[in-house]
Amino acid sequence: MKIEFYQKLAKVAPEKTVFATNSSTLLPSQFAAYTGRPEKFVALHFANEIWKHNTGEVMKHPGTSDEVFESLLVFAKQIGMVPLAIHKEQPGYIVNSLLVPLLSAGMDLWIRDVADIETVDKTWMVATGAPLGPFGILDVVGITTAYNINKMVADKTKDPVKLKIADKLKAEFIDKGKLGVETGEGFYKYPNPSFKQKDFLK
Amino acid sequence: MKIEFYQKLAKVAPEKTVFATNSSTLLPSQFAAYTGRPEKFVALHFANEIWKHNTGEVMKHPGTSDEVFESLLVFAKQIGMVPLAIHKEQPGYIVNSLLVPLLSAGMDLWIRDVADIETVDKTWMVATGAPLGPFGILDVVGITTAYNINKMVADKTKDPVKLKIADKLKAEFIDKGKLGVETGEGFYKYPNPSFKQKDFLK
Repeated sequence: MKIEFYQKLAKVAPEKTVFATNSSTLLPSQFAAYTGRPEKFVALHFANEIWKHNTGEVMKHPGTSDEVFESLLVFAKQIGMVPLAIHKEQPGYIVNSLLVPLLSAGMDLWIRDVADIETVDKTWMVATGAPLGPFGILDVVGITTAYNINKMVADKTKDPVKLKIADKLKAEFIDKGKLGVETGEGFYKYPNPSFKQKDFLK
Repeated sequence: MKIEFYQKLAKVAPEKTVFATNSSTLLPSQFAAYTGRPEKFVALHFANEIWKHNTGEVMKHPGTSDEVFESLLVFAKQIGMVPLAIHKEQPGYIVNSLLVPLLSAGMDLWIRDVADIETVDKTWMVATGAPLGPFGILDVVGITTAYNINKMVADKTKDPVKLKIADKLKAEFIDKGKLGVETGEGFYKYPNPSFKQKDFLK
């Protein structure tokens, strides 16, 4: 469907027009050939709007021209994003490449009963000075997204820990409408989650 | 050697004495039997002293009594640590279980030339509000420790990415005396690393 879209767009858009995709998971090189202007095709990814700051990740595919790449970085800055240059295309850009391993490690500790979610978050917040721990971040990202990623990996790898995480996210969160900050409850209750209380880090 | 140590200590210490190990990598259950008091044996792990805040991770082994576990949590708090309860023993406690995957993901992006270290750190700092990105944290942890962990995994798994990371940390950092914050240079130069400059997050 995306291929067809780009083929149609290629016909109607002026030759000079730069195409930018905001896809989170598909690589730009999968579509570059269909745009009729691979050198003017690039990925521009905006982070989750709930973060305080705005990341504008600009990702090349092998055929993107340096000029277009640079101009997109300038554009991202002009519209108030922090421009972040990704020189080699890969799934997940930078934010998700870093976040997924951290969040997985947190859920792993939780599902194996090593420590409760507040202790995991407290440890991270105290040790690194971060404003949110893995479960606080998961509530922002949304439990549905966390579930989808875990389910995909669980189905693919049959990893019993991932399967258990996916089952638990479904049964105890999604089925109960606890989808994170957006519904007022996820791992924590909002607007006053325990990790924001004065004595949490003591 | 540790076993012999605990066997000797078991003979001379009063029966009521609680033994606590601060080992970073060995599990308490490996030694519990030699202490002559497995129910009074527990792990108490202090984080890297360079962090602003102090984590006191208290980890049970299967034979630690609840009473001793609770008393160590109280003790950790009394000596100014944030007490963190780990109910099931595992290598790396909580801090390292979370940090290692994040730092690995950052080094993976760097070694594959996806993005430079400043862009990786900037992305993390902007997206999550954290005071340090993966490479800023690596400089605090120390390049030698990062090298040792990568080398161990690389030797075990023969993962070409890990091997490349280990080689580069050795040749471009350790051999040049760039060991991180402690030597004034690692991925960044101290005391005024670029990520602390006013415009870094713009």
